[in-house]
Amino acid sequence: MLEDMGKAAKAASYRLAQLSAREKNAALEMIADNLEAQSATILAANEQDLAEARNNGLSEAMLDRLQLNPARLSGIANDVRQVCRLADPVGQVIDGGMLDSGLRIERRRVPLGVVGVIYEARPNVTVDVASLCLKTGNAVILRGGKETWRTNAATVRVIQSALEACGLPAGAVQAIESPDRALVNEMLRMDQYIDMLIPRGGAGLHKLCREQSTIPVITGGIGVCHIFVDESADITPALNVIVNAKTQRPSTCNTVETLLVHTAIAARFLPELSNVMAQRGVTLHADAAALAALSSGPAAVVPVKAEEYDNEFLSLDLNVKLVSGLDDAIDHIRAHGTQHSDAILTRTLRNADRFVNEVDSSAVYVNASTRFTDGGQFGLGAEVAVSTQKLHARGPMGLEALTTYKWIGYGDDTIRA
Amino acid sequence: MLEDMGKAAKAASYRLAQLSAREKNAALEMIADNLEAQSATILAANEQDLAEARNNGLSEAMLDRLQLNPARLSGIANDVRQVCRLADPVGQVIDGGMLDSGLRIERRRVPLGVVGVIYEARPNVTVDVASLCLKTGNAVILRGGKETWRTNAATVRVIQSALEACGLPAGAVQAIESPDRALVNEMLRMDQYIDMLIPRGGAGLHKLCREQSTIPVITGGIGVCHIFVDESADITPALNVIVNAKTQRPSTCNTVETLLVHTAIAARFLPELSNVMAQRGVTLHADAAALAALSSGPAAVVPVKAEEYDNEFLSLDLNVKLVSGLDDAIDHIRAHGTQHSDAILTRTLRNADRFVNEVDSSAVYVNASTRFTDGGQFGLGAEVAVSTQKLHARGPMGLEALTTYKWIGYGDDTIRA
Repeated sequence: MLEDMGKAAKAASYRLAQLSAREKNAALEMIADNLEAQSATILAANEQDLAEARNNGLSEAMLDRLQLNPARLSGIANDVRQVCRLADPVGQVIDGGMLDSGLRIERRRVPLGVVGVIYEARPNVTVDVASLCLKTGNAVILRGGKETWRTNAATVRVIQSALEACGLPAGAVQAIESPDRALVNEMLRMDQYIDMLIPRGGAGLHKLCREQSTIPVITGGIGVCHIFVDESADITPALNVIVNAKTQRPSTCNTVETLLVHTAIAARFLPELSNVMAQRGVTLHADAAALAALSSGPAAVVPVKAEEYDNEFLSLDLNVKLVSGLDDAIDHIRAHGTQHSDAILTRTLRNADRFVNEVDSSAVYVNASTRFTDGGQFGLGAEVAVSTQKLHARGPMGLEALTTYKWIGYGDDTIRA
Repeated sequence: MLEDMGKAAKAASYRLAQLSAREKNAALEMIADNLEAQSATILAANEQDLAEARNNGLSEAMLDRLQLNPARLSGIANDVRQVCRLADPVGQVIDGGMLDSGLRIERRRVPLGVVGVIYEARPNVTVDVASLCLKTGNAVILRGGKETWRTNAATVRVIQSALEACGLPAGAVQAIESPDRALVNEMLRMDQYIDMLIPRGGAGLHKLCREQSTIPVITGGIGVCHIFVDESADITPALNVIVNAKTQRPSTCNTVETLLVHTAIAARFLPELSNVMAQRGVTLHADAAALAALSSGPAAVVPVKAEEYDNEFLSLDLNVKLVSGLDDAIDHIRAHGTQHSDAILTRTLRNADRFVNEVDSSAVYVNASTRFTDGGQFGLGAEVAVSTQKLHARGPMGLEALTTYKWIGYGDDTIRA
């Protein structure tokens, strides 16, 4: 079955690669309209998924994440209409020129071909990813969380009906319509058909993909993010940035998890940190040196466990560790970071420069919240994933990350000397 | 042992990433000088490798490929000096700007970190790859062909002595100094230390890396390249391009292996092809339709076997197949190509455009030889490999392909709204 899906996707990809921006946008508009017009079938499937999830004892927070309603579906449809408005990167000439040999070359941006995406149980991701892939002329094979497989299947059928109404192949957007986990393993070996694989999920999924996939994988989305409070930091604005980075939306991967505090500022800084974090309900996980100062403050504080420095809490918990200076901070980040997003709060130019240069992360910040690492915030217009590896794309991945390029050589019966 | 190499490479990579272009060029100059000054140790090791290879019955062609002498070593040293003259891509700002939030962002080009390269028994590759990695601020772990392991080890020791003379860590350039194959498998799982793996070799090595590596891999270098002779092709210049693509250096991956000939031009074209290929000593492997016309010509001709359409001959052999037109040619290339280099010879603009748009290869040519797919020819100044996959880099990989980027956000205590 997967083999047939692979063949259909590959065939569709050849067709999609030749579409103009106008043709792709017309299909996206039709998809948005059909998502609203045919919402009943999607909502019915979603109710079945929800009923099963409820029976399986999923938490209310999780159930809320799975649930669709007419308003949410309209929101999703409007997101598709937003994608229409983005510039189409396909066809863009990256560079080129005339060679000594007389060959005129150019590097032209083209779709990747077929993209595979494995994602969590979030119904909006199905449409998001499909529309971004379609916009960039890629076919896509989707494998969503098993808790929403009926919703995803119904959604993809609506998308396919829109594609066919536009004269485009249904193979352009396909979903693996089964909660069977073995199919994921099979998908990971389909290098003959899938050009790039994007796993969106926890560390386990990323490890599985890195170890089992024969398809090039984009790993990312796991963020053990740090903020280093330098000796010269200005305490009040620093706390403002830290509060934002920790509490603005704690469940996201760009949330700060560990605060590294210069010992020289600790005595002044930690009591104020405790005050602010108490108001926000944040529990501090402090190392021995910080614990003493924090224990007398109002914020909840516990001794940090060594393994918590590698934790992506995704909750109102924050490690606090004292460091002897910038070098110590950088060493800690190299040992425990996930190359996602790290920040320095400082008034010292040289330390800002060194932090930016020496911290090897997808995004590094000076006097700013780690929460900015996001395709929308970075002006990419959309985000298919956040890469924390170094090949192909790093950080938030927008439309350009869904493309590759080809070299084109125009000759006049030109031969190599 | 490999674990220690990985750690040393990672530590060195942090140091290399901070070097200026001037400091890296000084180290490269020192390496070039030392390769000449200390040539005796390298040549002695090479003699031992050669003696063993001769005992093992390697062909004269192969022995010649392994052999170093003072002149060749000077040539290699001069190649290093050439690398000094290339522009350093590290530090380049790719793009950036001010966001609505007040955050100023830029995307800055940075080294990948640690590159792993597995390559054939060619002593010059050791120095080539090391110098390109050093130029781009990357540490490198080399695993050369087992037939030249002593040469490689001696060469790397000379490089390391030059690095240390410049105050740089020897861990920047390391070689696996053992012909033991098991170490390759171990290397493939070192994702904790190696950021990118480049296998240079045959299909077997690429398959091994795709299946076993937990490190992102650049596959490539295998070329089943095609030329489509369209109905409107001008026969004499077309033959000139084909001869160049087949015979200018048949052992290279950008050599044409299959000629697809439009049936409408076959009667006029095939006799002349036979004449020209007879002069060049090329054996034609013809499909049934072409065989009749070619049998009466002077060139050697045999019936093509079906599996030969997937052959990278790397010799004076050329498949010849008649096709009914452009669609048929594109279908054949999609089924049998390796997404390396493919060309159309035509006088019809629309067909040229369609071929360029619809053939999904790293390099596509109009009226030019496939032999141009090469970093030097494309003006990249150097080439670390030719990628035939779509992530990160496609086609000839120059210095830029040895870099990634980081996002840098400069705030004024800026938070996300």
